[in-house]
Amino acid sequence: MLEQTVAAVAPLDEAAVAAARALQDRLTKPAGSLGALEELSVRLAGLAGACPPPVPEPAAVAIFAGDHGVHAQGVTPWPQEVTAQMVTNFLAGGAVVNAFARQTGATVTVVDVGVRKGPLLSHSVEEGPLPNTPGGGGPRLVSANVRSGTRDLTVEPALTREEARDAVEVGIRIAHELLDAGAGILVTGDMGIGNTTPAAALIAAFTGVDPAEVTGRGTGVDDPTYARKIEVIRTALARHRPDPADPLGVLAAVGGLEHAALAGFVLGGAARRAPVLLDGVSAVAAALVAVAFAPDAAYALVAGHRSAEPGATAGLERLGLTPILDLGLRLGEGTGALLAFPVVAGAVRVLHEVATFDSAGVSEK
Amino acid sequence: MLEQTVAAVAPLDEAAVAAARALQDRLTKPAGSLGALEELSVRLAGLAGACPPPVPEPAAVAIFAGDHGVHAQGVTPWPQEVTAQMVTNFLAGGAVVNAFARQTGATVTVVDVGVRKGPLLSHSVEEGPLPNTPGGGGPRLVSANVRSGTRDLTVEPALTREEARDAVEVGIRIAHELLDAGAGILVTGDMGIGNTTPAAALIAAFTGVDPAEVTGRGTGVDDPTYARKIEVIRTALARHRPDPADPLGVLAAVGGLEHAALAGFVLGGAARRAPVLLDGVSAVAAALVAVAFAPDAAYALVAGHRSAEPGATAGLERLGLTPILDLGLRLGEGTGALLAFPVVAGAVRVLHEVATFDSAGVSEK
Repeated sequence: MLEQTVAAVAPLDEAAVAAARALQDRLTKPAGSLGALEELSVRLAGLAGACPPPVPEPAAVAIFAGDHGVHAQGVTPWPQEVTAQMVTNFLAGGAVVNAFARQTGATVTVVDVGVRKGPLLSHSVEEGPLPNTPGGGGPRLVSANVRSGTRDLTVEPALTREEARDAVEVGIRIAHELLDAGAGILVTGDMGIGNTTPAAALIAAFTGVDPAEVTGRGTGVDDPTYARKIEVIRTALARHRPDPADPLGVLAAVGGLEHAALAGFVLGGAARRAPVLLDGVSAVAAALVAVAFAPDAAYALVAGHRSAEPGATAGLERLGLTPILDLGLRLGEGTGALLAFPVVAGAVRVLHEVATFDSAGVSEK
Repeated sequence: MLEQTVAAVAPLDEAAVAAARALQDRLTKPAGSLGALEELSVRLAGLAGACPPPVPEPAAVAIFAGDHGVHAQGVTPWPQEVTAQMVTNFLAGGAVVNAFARQTGATVTVVDVGVRKGPLLSHSVEEGPLPNTPGGGGPRLVSANVRSGTRDLTVEPALTREEARDAVEVGIRIAHELLDAGAGILVTGDMGIGNTTPAAALIAAFTGVDPAEVTGRGTGVDDPTYARKIEVIRTALARHRPDPADPLGVLAAVGGLEHAALAGFVLGGAARRAPVLLDGVSAVAAALVAVAFAPDAAYALVAGHRSAEPGATAGLERLGLTPILDLGLRLGEGTGALLAFPVVAGAVRVLHEVATFDSAGVSEK
């Protein structure tokens, strides 16, 4: 499935790009006055191969959840069971991502791709659709646990290549399911206590930037923990020497199950010519993986926001993406991306709904 | 009415501020992880005097339209009749602001506060409510024309003090009407061919920044026109020497009717403790006027975006506001503010809908 998906990722349709650019210049506004929205609308036309492209609605956020063996190295003050507790919170509709999804009319799918099994994992949650809640689809759980958390990347590879591939293919499958169900845009979400450590390792591996420059304070760590986190990433990279030309190998060495699934989610969206709206640093790390598999996947990417994590900025630069929002968010879950979603929809809506100078009888300069 | 409104503008309610700050820290997310949204939610609690404050929905955009005598100086390549033509376009639902309003469920009110009378002004448009359109209230026109465009500020004051006051009071009245009709947040819009010239003049007058640094290319002017525009603003400021301690005098000397009305709109919202979401450079100029009348009006202001016009940045700095979006927009109409509206609503929604660590059974660090 991975190879087929990678093969299906294609460049922009240049005819649709040209048509969208020409249409923008006929709409009743000064040329260029919608700034970055104009180029975004043009790119989404090229992605869809149609002008105007479909308005990318509704949004479907998939929150890929996983745990991390590197938690044992003390890279975060949060207990590991919070991953499972937050999965329960997402399904109950109580997290920030749920509030933003209700506001946006987005569906929420929580994918257990690697939550640690144990007495603290809530097994009271049944897989399957939950009743809808007002303002959007109700959250649902997909159980697709590839492994009960990763191994500790400081002492061994986090995953086998087979596990990494399985997790990538979970993401591809979810992308197809959400698009088949009518999603107009895929929104990345993630949950995993400790997951900014593998995210930073992935970003360092693909960008070549020093770990100290791509490592942040995640959910909020003190100075000694921060120093330890950087050292942990240095150790992992020195031990595994991941080769950026072998994205599955990089994922296996220093990734997380949610990062692998997110990479597949990006590839699945790109293969279907659907836009994928990136949230924070885990999504950016996963996007680097996806683009290493299929460079043209970059055309499907929209950066929702600039996470406060420095690795996000390094990754976005490598991807050539300018984020829509820059508000110092560092929550994950898909929250920053959902806040940016109306801007993406608005950029496309302009091509559908705005009058031309001719049709509105407005004089030109 | 102006004096009563100014007297009603009050500082934040400190108890509500403290309650909102405490609530943010109990929600199921790392403290501070919502970045700028947290402080915004706290301020809106203080503005409303309640924690949580009301979710600021629905949005109501008022597009104040006016013409400018300074058009005779060749500060823009667009013909003056485009102001009236765009009023017609707004009422027909064909402009970008309409597309964004439909997406957002915002109502659109077009206020003719100073469109130039003449054969080119469309008089086929009747004042009054129009049928609703799907996704939001349909646009309506309010005829409150104080004067048929301003005078040329390079040769005489643009307005008399009485005209300026009348226009300010139009804005105050519209703010009350929209809030009485159930708006949760006021959104500034403007339309006026040539209106970035008085906007820059107002910003220069209130910030003391040199005209060359606050003057931009508006809807897109060439180098000679740009140089002329700066010279026009220098001439006007040298002729009138507006005193920033006399905001009505500044408006009369170098303002526009839409800027005066927008200043009143801000004051009306602030007096009602309702948030006012600012669009581009004309709104920022008007906000400087409002704050000169009543400094505490600043608490009600939310900057929707950073306009590409340099005066907007100078004005936002003076107002102490960080914009939500920075996408190079320079269209006006309220477009940038409407794109930012979901972020403002989301920031407040968090205080209403997100579970606490206790209620969700999530462990803390």
